Amino acid sequence: AVAAPALSADLPTIKWRLASSFPKSLDTIFGGADVVAKRVAAATGGKFQIQVFAAGEIVPGPGVLDAVKDGTVECGHTCSYYFIGKDPTFAFETAVPFGLNSRQQTAWMMDGGGLELFREFFKDYNIYNIPCGNTGAQMGGWFRKEIKTVQDLNGLKFRCGGFAGQVLAKLGVVPQQIPGGDIYPALEKGTIDAAEWIGPYDDQKLGFNKVAKYYYYPGFWEGGPQIAMYVNQKQWASLPKEYQTILEDACLYAHAEMQARYDAKNPNALKQLVGSGTQLRPFPNEVMAAAYKAANELYEETAAKNAKFKKIYDSWKKFRDDQLQWFAVAENRFDNFMQAARSASAKASKK
Amino acid sequence: AVAAPALSADLPTIKWRLASSFPKSLDTIFGGADVVAKRVAAATGGKFQIQVFAAGEIVPGPGVLDAVKDGTVECGHTCSYYFIGKDPTFAFETAVPFGLNSRQQTAWMMDGGGLELFREFFKDYNIYNIPCGNTGAQMGGWFRKEIKTVQDLNGLKFRCGGFAGQVLAKLGVVPQQIPGGDIYPALEKGTIDAAEWIGPYDDQKLGFNKVAKYYYYPGFWEGGPQIAMYVNQKQWASLPKEYQTILEDACLYAHAEMQARYDAKNPNALKQLVGSGTQLRPFPNEVMAAAYKAANELYEETAAKNAKFKKIYDSWKKFRDDQLQWFAVAENRFDNFMQAARSASAKASKK
Repeated sequence: AVAAPALSADLPTIKWRLASSFPKSLDTIFGGADVVAKRVAAATGGKFQIQVFAAGEIVPGPGVLDAVKDGTVECGHTCSYYFIGKDPTFAFETAVPFGLNSRQQTAWMMDGGGLELFREFFKDYNIYNIPCGNTGAQMGGWFRKEIKTVQDLNGLKFRCGGFAGQVLAKLGVVPQQIPGGDIYPALEKGTIDAAEWIGPYDDQKLGFNKVAKYYYYPGFWEGGPQIAMYVNQKQWASLPKEYQTILEDACLYAHAEMQARYDAKNPNALKQLVGSGTQLRPFPNEVMAAAYKAANELYEETAAKNAKFKKIYDSWKKFRDDQLQWFAVAENRFDNFMQAARSASAKASKK
Repeated sequence: AVAAPALSADLPTIKWRLASSFPKSLDTIFGGADVVAKRVAAATGGKFQIQVFAAGEIVPGPGVLDAVKDGTVECGHTCSYYFIGKDPTFAFETAVPFGLNSRQQTAWMMDGGGLELFREFFKDYNIYNIPCGNTGAQMGGWFRKEIKTVQDLNGLKFRCGGFAGQVLAKLGVVPQQIPGGDIYPALEKGTIDAAEWIGPYDDQKLGFNKVAKYYYYPGFWEGGPQIAMYVNQKQWASLPKEYQTILEDACLYAHAEMQARYDAKNPNALKQLVGSGTQLRPFPNEVMAAAYKAANELYEETAAKNAKFKKIYDSWKKFRDDQLQWFAVAENRFDNFMQAARSASAKASKK
């Protein structure tokens, strides 16, 4: 157990560029790529350098897939569900409405066959994908008016992510695609009626509470959205085994840390929002039940005409059902008891 | 972006021994140390080797703390709550009754101050600790008779972990300390009335369902127990920065993977157990509420006489309260809706 100084003279010197789909202002989600870059550099004595570029610096946020595929950059940090226009199958690598929660998504990926299925799927895009972050269940977004029935969704101009938009369109919503930076003015002017972004910590930064009063939950279309590291297949294959392992481990470090950071930072942000007048509202059961039905219909319709989608959907669906059955036992009973105990103790301390 | 072959000629060659507190038969929890060893070797071209020894091979399971502290081995894979006999403060690094769930525990460690507090605490033991696995909420264990009231706990000889034993003793339980391998015969002969171990996947291997009919949930004393890598402080300091990062990242990889493996493997094991006649039972609310009260009393009593305990308990308690408040919003509402939808769909398919 004697350690001489590590000079690493024979390890190759590599410089990569990473294109992020996120703006620098979102320190948790954008920060995941920075964490990877720093840890890879530290693990290699600075020989493997990854320079991180925010959305728009090399390519715009939605351009990350093509940039990695075509080798414009060696790697990217993004969410696969941005690319459902190419193939709806992408959605499962991030999140689909009424899907897996954060832990279940990681379990599907790392021990439930999800990663193998997506490594195969991504071959057509010259991409090697690695889980690299999760936000946890997101909030349902900011609404200028209350949503009390399914009818209230009719004609509602709602800024929301792709697959969620298709589900909600079945209930009358008119989904809006607007970049993060343009949401605030659109909501302020009333060009849109509602917008969802991520959760308290990120939403507070963008100030949505100043232009919409009602903050709905949960974002049932994103119960545990995973962020991914995309690596160009050829670049991945050219890495020595050491660097492949180092990069993959750094991604999993960032994966755990991003979820931890969201969990640790959201509570205080939510308290501040509520303290400044934000009205918290759960989506009515009726609305969620109608959306659940619409989502399942959309999955069946899509599976009937897309074999790649069907293959992954079948694995995912069985995994989800098994997870729900197991989580109903120890996990949810524990969580629900803790919630009941908290409520009881909050009530008692008010007396 | 050109990669020459990696020879790593100047990285030091290091051989470490790792003492695990777990038997080889538990592939998920023991396996976490194997995952770390393999990934560290792969990341260093085989230069940093960690040889993993199961409980009893170098030291017995409960001897891991002293073995790392004294430098008998360079590192160990264990649960800190085995060492509450030295100081009850250890418990928080794994789990305490009615504590954090798996995600919350990781959040506390990685972004809530928990790791900093424990790095300080562990200095007295010459140990640098790294999160390295979690099982998720455990099951409450195997009981020969049903538990319907708090009175049913009176005189019950229950094999259970340390801090849980102290809480349950306040309710009349007579806690039993028995190594994993001796539980089956004790339960079969009726020397003990009940025993808790981990969860369906591990419990099934030990065959407890053959000698006890009732399988209770949740293990409210282990809502999200963390497994730790202990590294001897002097050995840690002697590692080059590269190896420190590589080891830490490999631990976080194993951390995410162990939880994933438990989540992916438990559902099927539970189905098989129920299929073979095991009776699933939730602990009655009355029992959990009494245990919750007893746990809080124990924490306050311990904090009053142990400053180290108090310091960590205060941080932990505030973090737990904040987490519960936030999880009550998006996270639990999402999980509970998914459970309700599953139940409804299961009922509909039976018609």
